[in-house]
Amino acid sequence: STAVKVAYAKGDGIGPEIMDATLRILEAAGARIDFEEVTIGEQVYLSGNTSGIDKHAWDTIRKNKVFLKAPITTPRGGGYKSLNVTIRKSLGLYANVRPCNSLSPFVQTLHPNMDVVIVRENEEDLYAGIEHQQTDEVVQCLKLITRPGVEKIVRYAFEFAKVYNRKKVTCFVKDNIMKHTDGLFSTVFQEIAAEYPNIDSQTMIVDIGAAKLANRPEDFDVVVMPNLYGDIISDIAAEISGSVGLAGSSNIGMECAMFEAIHGSAPDISGQNIANPSGLLRGAIMMLNHIGQPDVAEKIENAWLATIENGIHTADIFNENHSTKKVGTREFADA
Amino acid sequence: STAVKVAYAKGDGIGPEIMDATLRILEAAGARIDFEEVTIGEQVYLSGNTSGIDKHAWDTIRKNKVFLKAPITTPRGGGYKSLNVTIRKSLGLYANVRPCNSLSPFVQTLHPNMDVVIVRENEEDLYAGIEHQQTDEVVQCLKLITRPGVEKIVRYAFEFAKVYNRKKVTCFVKDNIMKHTDGLFSTVFQEIAAEYPNIDSQTMIVDIGAAKLANRPEDFDVVVMPNLYGDIISDIAAEISGSVGLAGSSNIGMECAMFEAIHGSAPDISGQNIANPSGLLRGAIMMLNHIGQPDVAEKIENAWLATIENGIHTADIFNENHSTKKVGTREFADA
Ligand SMILES: CC(C)[C@H](C(=O)O)[C@@H](O)C(=O)O
Ligand SMILES: CC(C)[C@H](C(=O)O)[C@@H](O)C(=O)O
Repeated sequence: STAVKVAYAKGDGIGPEIMDATLRILEAAGARIDFEEVTIGEQVYLSGNTSGIDKHAWDTIRKNKVFLKAPITTPRGGGYKSLNVTIRKSLGLYANVRPCNSLSPFVQTLHPNMDVVIVRENEEDLYAGIEHQQTDEVVQCLKLITRPGVEKIVRYAFEFAKVYNRKKVTCFVKDNIMKHTDGLFSTVFQEIAAEYPNIDSQTMIVDIGAAKLANRPEDFDVVVMPNLYGDIISDIAAEISGSVGLAGSSNIGMECAMFEAIHGSAPDISGQNIANPSGLLRGAIMMLNHIGQPDVAEKIENAWLATIENGIHTADIFNENHSTKKVGTREFADA
Repeated sequence: STAVKVAYAKGDGIGPEIMDATLRILEAAGARIDFEEVTIGEQVYLSGNTSGIDKHAWDTIRKNKVFLKAPITTPRGGGYKSLNVTIRKSLGLYANVRPCNSLSPFVQTLHPNMDVVIVRENEEDLYAGIEHQQTDEVVQCLKLITRPGVEKIVRYAFEFAKVYNRKKVTCFVKDNIMKHTDGLFSTVFQEIAAEYPNIDSQTMIVDIGAAKLANRPEDFDVVVMPNLYGDIISDIAAEISGSVGLAGSSNIGMECAMFEAIHGSAPDISGQNIANPSGLLRGAIMMLNHIGQPDVAEKIENAWLATIENGIHTADIFNENHSTKKVGTREFADA
């Protein structure tokens, strides 16, 4: 079959190292992909472009429709908007899907039986980025929830559950306080849940829901929620499954899709060949399934799993009781 | 010494049972308190008052200045505002303090060494309750952060750390996205932290902060944060320490203070003599310290701890490996 076109960005911090590892693995496994590089992030900021991305990069991503992205750094401070968020919203990537499963007994975790998929709304909520200074001492941020936005993400969660044969979809909201915004989310959740009688559904207040998930993640399956809760709770789920360094994510839209690790660019450990490439690699595996190359996806997933199972571990997950050999980014990719 | 005046409300659901248990323990331990009951919640709603509280109750609470409150139920739906939140804001109870420590090996937990205090801002954030319907399909909620509000809560956290000899205060914010609102919170945190050179301080993005806390709570000490994060993360901390049923909280203002359990009114198990009164009791212990009766507080705390250590447990924490005897609410109080 012919090659699929994919844009990719090497990113900042540990980005180039884990991207290099990932691309080598994709090639070795025979992925049928025509890669086109785009430069975004630090280099673009340094050139004086405060958006971190130029028109050529936008055009390339839009043309290729599929984008494999390493972590990027947005400078801190008032003048800069998060480039990650800009990309998600500009491309209409409404669904952020983050599978978090433990790899026990091969990777240390207190929760050996967890297998949770966080489906995070990816365009609305406090991420709308509408903030203003009301007075010298009062600032405000707008939380935005729309019916079409909620319908898209909730339907995505149930369709995902159906396709992957998942049994239950749980919704996290704080609708006892935010009766209109989170109230709309839970109302739409119930409407759409009724269309899927074969999938269990359940709504929980996010405080106790997050608490139960952090304590007994094995009781959860697919969990759908507004953007900011999803940001926090997906990091929790990934970390307690073993490490945030192990989780990949897909960002799905009507036209385009982006695949990435859930962790950041970790500048403190960059350039040292110690970062774990697993997050980005698992993002790439999700990408292969998305572009119709499940054969390659499976091959890579099996090889990755075998490496983890053989105890060949990067420093972040190295543990005397579970690991046999501590390796660097490159050696992990080789294995 | 003379008795201190305290208002109390029996609450809804399991409220009356756990309040009865708590009052009996306070009396047996010789607490020097003149209690005055106020009726709020369900009964008041049923009488047609949609605020759930009447003028007499407000006056009584304001006059007594100290309020011991069992969980109350606010009816769901658009017409009702959360009475819990109304009380916190009307009385200016700006600091919500929630200690979460494990009781290992006596109560089952995956985190035997945790001893975290969540200091939650209690008046601002999305809890300002400003929501509106923009169009048929678009709803918004306002997140509000003010400099005086942040100054109060951050200073409270550092003073708390100083008085209780705590080593570190961590701040959770999402200031890479909410640069103005959460940005103000972290700016003020850094300003005030500089006034306490003997206490370690640290700011973390709430996603990875919550993840680390859920995975290794023993690495945290005092953690201060905006209202909604505090709501979610205090439930997580309490649940992973053993159970949300074990945590009490104080709500501190300039004039008044309110003490309560962190859990809700649990109508599903009410009237069955099975609820754990520990949350409210620990709220009452914090109250005794607040009103200058640390002797009584210590007596009750020791008796409570001995009961827990003897394995005399209510159903929620009963576990064959850690418990010797399953008891009801009343029997737990007797013990
Ligand atoms: C880097 C940051 C803007 C981003 C987010 O908040 O969404 C990250 O935390 C994530 O979860 O992908
Ligand atoms: C009952 C609810 C309004 C309340 C809150 O959201 O603050 C509760 O969850 C709490 O944490 O005390």
